[in-house]
Amino acid sequence: MATANSFLRVGCLVGLLGMDPASGLPTAPAGDASPKRWNVVLVMTDDQGAWTMGAYGNRQCPTPNMDRLAREGALFTNAFTVTPLCSPSRASFLTGLYPTQAGISDVLYWSLMKGWLPPKDYEREIRRGLDSGTVTWPELLQENGYATALVGKWHLGVQKEHHPTLHGFDYYFGPYLAGVLDLANPVLQENGEKQTYDRFMTDVFTDKAIQFIERNRERPFALVLATQVPHSPWNKVPQEDLKPLEGVELTLPSARSDFGDGEERLRTFTRNYLGLVRTADRNLGRILQSLKTQGLDDRTIVIFTSDHGFMMGHRNLIGKGTATYYAGGGFGPRRMNMFDDSIRVPLLVRWPGVVKPGTRISQTVSNLDWFPTLLGMLEVPRPADLALEGLDMTPLLRDRTVPWRDALFGQLDVERNGFALMRMIRTDRWKLVRFHLPLMMDELYDLENDPGETRNLYRNPEFRQVREKLQGRLTQWQNAIQDPVFKVEKAVHGK
Amino acid sequence: MATANSFLRVGCLVGLLGMDPASGLPTAPAGDASPKRWNVVLVMTDDQGAWTMGAYGNRQCPTPNMDRLAREGALFTNAFTVTPLCSPSRASFLTGLYPTQAGISDVLYWSLMKGWLPPKDYEREIRRGLDSGTVTWPELLQENGYATALVGKWHLGVQKEHHPTLHGFDYYFGPYLAGVLDLANPVLQENGEKQTYDRFMTDVFTDKAIQFIERNRERPFALVLATQVPHSPWNKVPQEDLKPLEGVELTLPSARSDFGDGEERLRTFTRNYLGLVRTADRNLGRILQSLKTQGLDDRTIVIFTSDHGFMMGHRNLIGKGTATYYAGGGFGPRRMNMFDDSIRVPLLVRWPGVVKPGTRISQTVSNLDWFPTLLGMLEVPRPADLALEGLDMTPLLRDRTVPWRDALFGQLDVERNGFALMRMIRTDRWKLVRFHLPLMMDELYDLENDPGETRNLYRNPEFRQVREKLQGRLTQWQNAIQDPVFKVEKAVHGK
Repeated sequence: MATANSFLRVGCLVGLLGMDPASGLPTAPAGDASPKRWNVVLVMTDDQGAWTMGAYGNRQCPTPNMDRLAREGALFTNAFTVTPLCSPSRASFLTGLYPTQAGISDVLYWSLMKGWLPPKDYEREIRRGLDSGTVTWPELLQENGYATALVGKWHLGVQKEHHPTLHGFDYYFGPYLAGVLDLANPVLQENGEKQTYDRFMTDVFTDKAIQFIERNRERPFALVLATQVPHSPWNKVPQEDLKPLEGVELTLPSARSDFGDGEERLRTFTRNYLGLVRTADRNLGRILQSLKTQGLDDRTIVIFTSDHGFMMGHRNLIGKGTATYYAGGGFGPRRMNMFDDSIRVPLLVRWPGVVKPGTRISQTVSNLDWFPTLLGMLEVPRPADLALEGLDMTPLLRDRTVPWRDALFGQLDVERNGFALMRMIRTDRWKLVRFHLPLMMDELYDLENDPGETRNLYRNPEFRQVREKLQGRLTQWQNAIQDPVFKVEKAVHGK
Repeated sequence: MATANSFLRVGCLVGLLGMDPASGLPTAPAGDASPKRWNVVLVMTDDQGAWTMGAYGNRQCPTPNMDRLAREGALFTNAFTVTPLCSPSRASFLTGLYPTQAGISDVLYWSLMKGWLPPKDYEREIRRGLDSGTVTWPELLQENGYATALVGKWHLGVQKEHHPTLHGFDYYFGPYLAGVLDLANPVLQENGEKQTYDRFMTDVFTDKAIQFIERNRERPFALVLATQVPHSPWNKVPQEDLKPLEGVELTLPSARSDFGDGEERLRTFTRNYLGLVRTADRNLGRILQSLKTQGLDDRTIVIFTSDHGFMMGHRNLIGKGTATYYAGGGFGPRRMNMFDDSIRVPLLVRWPGVVKPGTRISQTVSNLDWFPTLLGMLEVPRPADLALEGLDMTPLLRDRTVPWRDALFGQLDVERNGFALMRMIRTDRWKLVRFHLPLMMDELYDLENDPGETRNLYRNPEFRQVREKLQGRLTQWQNAIQDPVFKVEKAVHGK
């Protein structure tokens, strides 16, 4: 953490208003004996690379509300997802478990699968989703008196038993089903009731999120607003969000192969994609305004992040962990990857009176950390028998010195539209990516001297010792989480 | 077969010289009671697409000797390999079994693997090779009095027990070890003795092949000359073979994405590749000349084919079943494939007095057919208990009407440099490719209306019935050959 003891210093300021020493919250108005509890609003965007945001250095895409959050709170410079795909990333976010532990290690597609699979396989696939026995943090918040809501993307199952309201959310509004959606005229459901809206989907989400805030202003609440933007450059973009990007000669990432005739198309993709980042930004602004209007902004923690990163031509790829090659004006095969561009996410936390404005936190954190962190922030007791993989980030936010991880572990299982069983260990200096099943594909990058991950050092004898040490730690971790990949590997090599 | 009853008509001509009615051979000179037996010279090039050859329509690359063979014998218009990779294709060629049955279903790399694999895995990989218990056709020819030789590429194992001389070849000359080789100054072995040559590898092979022919002119022999050209455009090319291609503005295949800055490089690749096709052609000419000089050309069947096809920019790919994407001047990810460009091979058979010059055979044949065909051609009895998957092509060559297959089955297992477990059924009209493990990748092409295989109809409801029928036959075949892929699939889906 870049600033020293911001808690105490900010605490002094707030102290003038009267502050509860345990929670860091302003004490309740007279007549209310117990200190108020913090609310949480967590905005999770869809496929948003950190590079899209002004606060992370983008000079072309105006993101005033995200930037404001970064100014008023903490910005994490090393925030990651443990897997660069939507469904498993969200499963880890909600359960504090690695995707294979949570039982969801690949994207769940349904609508797209129907044409591909024979009925038997389709039946198996459509039954996949978050298991009822898996504990989520919203469940614990519910039990501790919080009103909980998910507005937006779920993507963790479509069977009755997968509905968000059965996994810890009192209220659910959103598309429920994932897949190709009409953002301009979305069909959405409110706790099960479907309706068609003639308003842009993200705007409808925010309407509903604001209504939830208004309804619950008198009690502690936890709201997740999971936008379905920016997601992909093929979506429709609200004109008002696109406007400031028009006429801007967008910088394209440098790439190994020429984009050729595809350069203009890539610029259009990028413009649309950034336009949708601005849609998210504008709606974040509406949330912040609502909190202010409701007088809740000094007792509400606002968190902004994304499910994973996204490449828009970076190293000739478009996409995330399953990105597609793009060169010479056309699309090529997929490149399954765990590049930083795919696993790195933006992460901002505004915690009034606790986190000093403008804080920068460089420790490596991940989406696994949200479960313990939300319990920590909200002082919700953690059940003694609950096994969680993440770490509580609260001490980092409170600028306390705590022992922290020196390595991030990751997974990428792809069984749809491709195949990969990849495992990763990433330290500040090195990244080792192991491809299970195929031989001769493993990767070793020196992130310090080659942050773009362009030179695979795996075979270089000079780094054999580094590689073996990392491989040893990776295997140790895989054993610890009982990685099912070993069983698969055995079956294939024994065939 | 395009011509009617060429056997009889040619038979009449040869009859003037005196012909043995059973073998089709000119009867032996006076003093020799038994009819002479046919010799076989089979030239197998490495990675040569049929499109490179004049006889198959190439108008830019002069291949006079291949073309001459096509004029003097039969050209197969639908010859394929059951797998588009070197080692397994050669395993099927020698054993008459599908790659998974022969126990070699992926390319065997050794030299390249050393830097990639931990010692334990390397030990497992380096032990892979043709099993001693697997019967090869050269073994049966040996037992029936043939002198047998392999000159050139083996690629079926590097352990002592894998040596070609233990698998049916009396004589072996070649590199033995596969991998990156110096074609200009090759290190080669003659039945185990190593030596460095300062002559182009293919030329040395042909020297040795000719010496073998000369040594065995008095007895029946079977010689396989397996060139290591054209193989790849990165190899050195003899100047004399490149010369006729210099200054030729080579036509590049039309592709979906632009080659961009890579267009000139692709032209250079293509020029080198075709130059090496010409190296093979020139050496084929030397073999034909030697047979003539030795007075053996009327009693020697000459077969010319390749292990599999090759794409040189076709659909933006360079390579075979594991081809690499090429666009915008650079290389992208691999695209595992069973496109016709990868599985189709050139196939020419000159069988003097039996096959009418200029014959065209359109039946679908494969490298599995060589085992039964060579037995059939040479009238070597087939052991009653020997299970072979291929068909005897002799009746086709003799222009006899026989029931023939209406579908070709294929496999592509890749576990090095990528991962794929693919299965294929191909009829004259349709091709279904099943990707095992990954979902939503299967392919269905209408070869009649889309010979370029550009439109995947798999999901198209209009062709659901076709797809299901083909899938049914494919599964039936997989069950019949006890395809190990089902076991793997079960392990993965059960994880």
